[in-house]
Amino acid sequence: MTADSDRHAMKMAKKKAARDKIMATKTDEKGLVMINTGKGKGKSSAAFGMIFRCIAHDMKCAVVQFIKGGMSTGERDLILGKFSDTCSFHTMGEGFTWETQDRDRDIEMAQAAWEKAKELIRDESHKMVLLDEINIALRYDYIDVNEVMTFLTEEKPHMTHVVLTGRNAKDELIEIADLVTEMELVKHPFRSGIKAQIGVEY
Amino acid sequence: MTADSDRHAMKMAKKKAARDKIMATKTDEKGLVMINTGKGKGKSSAAFGMIFRCIAHDMKCAVVQFIKGGMSTGERDLILGKFSDTCSFHTMGEGFTWETQDRDRDIEMAQAAWEKAKELIRDESHKMVLLDEINIALRYDYIDVNEVMTFLTEEKPHMTHVVLTGRNAKDELIEIADLVTEMELVKHPFRSGIKAQIGVEY
Repeated sequence: MTADSDRHAMKMAKKKAARDKIMATKTDEKGLVMINTGKGKGKSSAAFGMIFRCIAHDMKCAVVQFIKGGMSTGERDLILGKFSDTCSFHTMGEGFTWETQDRDRDIEMAQAAWEKAKELIRDESHKMVLLDEINIALRYDYIDVNEVMTFLTEEKPHMTHVVLTGRNAKDELIEIADLVTEMELVKHPFRSGIKAQIGVEY
Repeated sequence: MTADSDRHAMKMAKKKAARDKIMATKTDEKGLVMINTGKGKGKSSAAFGMIFRCIAHDMKCAVVQFIKGGMSTGERDLILGKFSDTCSFHTMGEGFTWETQDRDRDIEMAQAAWEKAKELIRDESHKMVLLDEINIALRYDYIDVNEVMTFLTEEKPHMTHVVLTGRNAKDELIEIADLVTEMELVKHPFRSGIKAQIGVEY
């Protein structure tokens, strides 16, 4: 070994010891409330990554899609086609709200999605429930944020993970969440005239 | 319709018109260089979401794992088990660098991974290549960032998407990327003693 790689080995050994010490204090398990928010890409995709992890471990899970268009139809078709035994899929939205232009119907849809979400979460056979784009429904007050907060803190089974996605997560929800990630947009190709492309956006 | 829902419909119609006008200007297609970076969760998961989209659309793709532990073994097993015809998987890393403590071997591994990455990207049958955790190898200078930049700007086939993940993306790479997302950590359950859990972290 050179002196350089020797120094490197010492530095890395220290890092490993520090990391091991921290990890040893992390012993609890519980169902997490997780939020993916922000203006960047990947909020739904990262949540789907967790759904695919559950599927890989044969953990029963469910997805409620509050607004159509949040997730890729590709991902949905893959789950419906190959993994419907492990993951159930509930599409309640009818397109983005600026597509439908009918507030009363939007509210009805969002409420129906929330009722379905509660039913799925209450069923303890589900290890993870993804509420995709629920933040948009909350932002437009189609669903009452206080009701969602109360349900997640008081009624959610202790070991069930719930993932909530969408821009503009409400502060009240961030307050009660265990893990919050903000996807920040640093650079986007739409700015230079590139259109949405297969495999990337849908 | 009530006056309230009438106002809502008008507002949404305006939004839709504005959005449609913007989208009409987005007409180009090209292979994108995409970076998921930041200290938050979801960098690899969101990239995997795109890989699953490609798989769903039957677009050939490939994953090179530069550092073991970046992605979930669950996701890897799912791809290897079910979709190996569409997506090839190349694990070159041997564990996080602070686990191995051998800089010379780490450099060798990273270089081998980069050679494999170039080979996969040059093969135009691949529509997307994910270089998972390459940013860590670049940060430790196991791979030369200038070589990666030159390759991506000069040799990458025009229509191939390349996704690079990992913390601390180098500025030079951000400069040449088309889409950059920073996953920012707002709140993390490790802080309150919760350990890594199946389905969530792996």
